[in-house]
Amino acid sequence: MHRTDATLALYGDDVRVGERAKLGSYHVTAEDIVSFARQWDPQFFHVDPDRAAAEGHFGGLIASGVHTLAIYQRLSIDSRVQHWHVIGGAGIRDLQLRRPVRPGDTLTGATVVTDVALQPERCRALVEYAGELTNQHDERVLALTMSAYLRMRTP
Amino acid sequence: MHRTDATLALYGDDVRVGERAKLGSYHVTAEDIVSFARQWDPQFFHVDPDRAAAEGHFGGLIASGVHTLAIYQRLSIDSRVQHWHVIGGAGIRDLQLRRPVRPGDTLTGATVVTDVALQPERCRALVEYAGELTNQHDERVLALTMSAYLRMRTP
Repeated sequence: MHRTDATLALYGDDVRVGERAKLGSYHVTAEDIVSFARQWDPQFFHVDPDRAAAEGHFGGLIASGVHTLAIYQRLSIDSRVQHWHVIGGAGIRDLQLRRPVRPGDTLTGATVVTDVALQPERCRALVEYAGELTNQHDERVLALTMSAYLRMRTP
Repeated sequence: MHRTDATLALYGDDVRVGERAKLGSYHVTAEDIVSFARQWDPQFFHVDPDRAAAEGHFGGLIASGVHTLAIYQRLSIDSRVQHWHVIGGAGIRDLQLRRPVRPGDTLTGATVVTDVALQPERCRALVEYAGELTNQHDERVLALTMSAYLRMRTP
């Protein structure tokens, strides 16, 4: 049923609590920040550089938190989740926007598996993982815990 | 310091626990789902209609959870948050993807203020609000609790 290129992917049974992964990096530009926020989060401190500098609490443009989460998700898919047999996402627990993300920042991700709950009667596992993004000053900008359902191996 | 058009906006002092708001509606297309996910969440059940139909747990394309959150955020900004003096977002607690979001769905939002913590020494308030999106069958697809810092009135 699964394609050949997915046969090396991990089932819920294979994922271990404590497994860590680095997630690669993403460079954030002012154009990215404004473009994302015009569509999804058009608050002035995300879309209007002049007003953000003059009136914004942070003295300039900052990225939408939804944008920062999207960057985390993209890094996570590219580095790790593509190697899992994912059924679908379940949710997010405790997402913290620790510091502003600004134009020119380079964000680097990391993640660790924090829980694996096998549900053999539904042939799935609920995998929980903590993730973070840090900027080029090694400051944590995003911390979160996400969960997703993975397939279990069928007998 | 603030523009005239913002003088009618609410400060943290003005926001009351229990205040409810309806958030408008958003129609989701297959093109939207694929376009968002190609950039931010390229898992096959978000970007490949044929494979999603053949192999996906849900029998077809479903929207990325980050996309669903982005739709909530856009509806929230347009309907309510534009009337708040927001400093910036703080985070998300307990985001649940209750049901899949599919092409053709129309999502409607609602929100209620669940907590207001005044921090006068920092001239800000941490406002927490619960939100949800329901589809055209009145099924809840997203439930979450978010928080943001609002300015307090200066004496």
